[in-house]
Amino acid sequence: MRIFITSLLLLVSPTIILANDQLIPVSEKTKKTAALLRDSALKNNSAYEILSSLTTEVGARHPGTPGEKNGIDWGVRTFKKLGFDKVWTEDVQMNGWVRVSETAEVMAPYYQKLVISALGRSSSTPEGGLKGDIVEFETYADLDKAAQGSLQGKIAFISNRMERKIDGAGYGPANIARTKGYMAAAKAGASALLIRSIGTDDHRNPHTGGTNIFKGVTSIPVAALSNPDADQLERLFALGHTPKVKLNIKTKDLGPIVTKNVIGEITGREKPNEIVVIGGHLDSWDLGTGAVDDGAGVAITMAAANFIKNTVKERPRRTIRVILWGAEELGLIGARAYAKARQEDGTLKDHIIGSESDFGAGPVYGLKSSEHVAPKAIHVIDTMAGLMGPLGVTRRSGGTMGGPDMIPLHALGIPSVGLMQNGEDYFDLHHTPDDTLDKVDPKMMRQNMAVWTVFAYIAAEWPGTFK
Amino acid sequence: MRIFITSLLLLVSPTIILANDQLIPVSEKTKKTAALLRDSALKNNSAYEILSSLTTEVGARHPGTPGEKNGIDWGVRTFKKLGFDKVWTEDVQMNGWVRVSETAEVMAPYYQKLVISALGRSSSTPEGGLKGDIVEFETYADLDKAAQGSLQGKIAFISNRMERKIDGAGYGPANIARTKGYMAAAKAGASALLIRSIGTDDHRNPHTGGTNIFKGVTSIPVAALSNPDADQLERLFALGHTPKVKLNIKTKDLGPIVTKNVIGEITGREKPNEIVVIGGHLDSWDLGTGAVDDGAGVAITMAAANFIKNTVKERPRRTIRVILWGAEELGLIGARAYAKARQEDGTLKDHIIGSESDFGAGPVYGLKSSEHVAPKAIHVIDTMAGLMGPLGVTRRSGGTMGGPDMIPLHALGIPSVGLMQNGEDYFDLHHTPDDTLDKVDPKMMRQNMAVWTVFAYIAAEWPGTFK
Repeated sequence: MRIFITSLLLLVSPTIILANDQLIPVSEKTKKTAALLRDSALKNNSAYEILSSLTTEVGARHPGTPGEKNGIDWGVRTFKKLGFDKVWTEDVQMNGWVRVSETAEVMAPYYQKLVISALGRSSSTPEGGLKGDIVEFETYADLDKAAQGSLQGKIAFISNRMERKIDGAGYGPANIARTKGYMAAAKAGASALLIRSIGTDDHRNPHTGGTNIFKGVTSIPVAALSNPDADQLERLFALGHTPKVKLNIKTKDLGPIVTKNVIGEITGREKPNEIVVIGGHLDSWDLGTGAVDDGAGVAITMAAANFIKNTVKERPRRTIRVILWGAEELGLIGARAYAKARQEDGTLKDHIIGSESDFGAGPVYGLKSSEHVAPKAIHVIDTMAGLMGPLGVTRRSGGTMGGPDMIPLHALGIPSVGLMQNGEDYFDLHHTPDDTLDKVDPKMMRQNMAVWTVFAYIAAEWPGTFK
Repeated sequence: MRIFITSLLLLVSPTIILANDQLIPVSEKTKKTAALLRDSALKNNSAYEILSSLTTEVGARHPGTPGEKNGIDWGVRTFKKLGFDKVWTEDVQMNGWVRVSETAEVMAPYYQKLVISALGRSSSTPEGGLKGDIVEFETYADLDKAAQGSLQGKIAFISNRMERKIDGAGYGPANIARTKGYMAAAKAGASALLIRSIGTDDHRNPHTGGTNIFKGVTSIPVAALSNPDADQLERLFALGHTPKVKLNIKTKDLGPIVTKNVIGEITGREKPNEIVVIGGHLDSWDLGTGAVDDGAGVAITMAAANFIKNTVKERPRRTIRVILWGAEELGLIGARAYAKARQEDGTLKDHIIGSESDFGAGPVYGLKSSEHVAPKAIHVIDTMAGLMGPLGVTRRSGGTMGGPDMIPLHALGIPSVGLMQNGEDYFDLHHTPDDTLDKVDPKMMRQNMAVWTVFAYIAAEWPGTFK
């Protein structure tokens, strides 16, 4: 509560310098409707039902696989079945990459199997696999200090473990091992890189994930060990052994492929060209069924827009556009294409405000607004937070980019909000085979949906602009 | 506590009809020594250290694999390093079976991968795999009612889920699907059987396990789905689909192979031929590193015997024999061979009492005695329970066979005790890749070791016999 009051004062204060008559209020009618939406959404199971359909009838949705195609078909079909006013897809060019198979075995001092998962864009090992002594580095920074050529014929191993935090703050510091580690390993001459999974669980399910692409850097075989397998290597070192490991990784560069953003709209009654963006990313990693990453976000936002359409008598003033972005996991590829296309067709300016749900299915506890929300509109965000209060949401200070797929729009100055979810368990599941529907609590899906109806409805109904 | 008092009265009562002078008491010195062992064992980490060594330096120990051989070498080496008085192995003939690979995919209504694990002695699918519509049965009993030939070309699926109970009581009723299901499926003409994993977790790690061998019954491909994958099939049925699944299972019958029981003794000072048996099974399933099943039992009993040797000035009156049984998972093969050999060499009668630790690393909460413990010796078991009281152990009524590998000795009339462990989480890990050291709490290993020192010491020191 202290955070709420403090940030409220801080954030509200700029509005004080404006004359009261300059502020466009949120009408009582709008507030009443938002409260009604909120309360009735808590009794509505449609977000969970949409998620159940997506994970059961589609499953994993990795670019370049049959699952992705099924997912895109599902998105179009589901938007239409729900009665969205406009439904379409937009092609996105990209380079595809898929996993074929991966095995890892400790060959010395004693034979043992290890469980690994190749990381996105990992190259294959030579036919028949490669063997090398493991050289352990605690962190990416330590590996990055290794002298050029010093790891010739070796397999580098980054062993540090990410920390569990409510807001996922442990992810960033650890994740650099995944995104950039291969580059440091390649520079030092290593034939491959193993990293401890970027995850907080202790299951034998490695966390896969993307690697960053750097011009002029050739990929090497790079894979994540499950936490228990990383422990195993660390214990072998602690006992004085130097484990020799055999890796056999097969991956496939698919070359140029086409993915799609799938879009459904509830068209605004008064300002149909003005757009409130909500959504999630439709693609998922290939190991699980993409329930928390990001089936939940897809389902919450589709259900919220649909619930507004079905609950409120007339369409909101503005258009609510639900975007199911493609190929987020391989580098926000769909989101970048979406933003670029709006720059080119001149409709970027019509994007009034937006947010993505992409942090699982934990309850929302905080509402932030980005620096692009103008002082004259802060009171609207505060009003949203007030209406979300009974759902356990408080107003928070600090920056936001509105979620990963909002980053390209944020970078172009589009206002956004961040609906902060409890992510304490999120990194137990993130990018693993365990990302399945059974991990999702229907009650939490209802809470999320209620929060998103409040945001989307007020953003679309309030007559002012956020910029 | 009520259970304790009730069962104590019940079990003590038969001794009341014996004249007091017929009872051989547990001496005050023995009790004092047992209490000292108990209290000092709680500060001793050796059971955890032994388990760490076994799981780290050996890992999975499935018969017919390099891991089993490493495990046997480790057993001999570790007994010797600890200074056991006698250390030897005994060859056991068996038929070996190993997994090679397994995949499962839903082909219709939508393509999806499923995570499975072939069950012990499953046959291979034809080269290239087999496809079939899934026919769902809730239980083994339902499948067993299917008419002969009615499942021709189909894949049978048993979907019921085992219940979580402190004593693992949910295992038996569910497990018949694993041990006998393939026979019912084959009888009905099914080309393969899938079962929901016999496990209580929700991770994407299937629970493997043995199938029973029945003369004249040919095995078919049989595999367990992880719980989330079984949910997935059930949801597809609930949506009105009949999933068509492709299975590709490769296994290998190794034919006759030799495994070993590994045995270490603390030789009795007065009655070296009289034997108190404790131990665990050295083999494990191939998916995990056999930490809770049954590295824990191996480590607890090795450490307990060793701790008695190192803590008490003189050897106990009788021999404490620590048996690391081989090939338990494929049908108590080492235990049956051990018992048969003792029948043949006439030393069966020298086995005074025994117990196996084979229910993970949860704390011991109860002590039972088998029906072969004579009324004149019940007071000794009660005394053991009393001394274990400060560890949270109470005396329990009801039968025991002293643990799986004690069954053959129990069947031949050898007295045994059951040291009941809290197994609420045991079936989250049992027979899965997740059976790794990180799941074990060192504190619980100390509690177990303390309990086992009390049992083994009193059983070996008390001058009377239990039969």
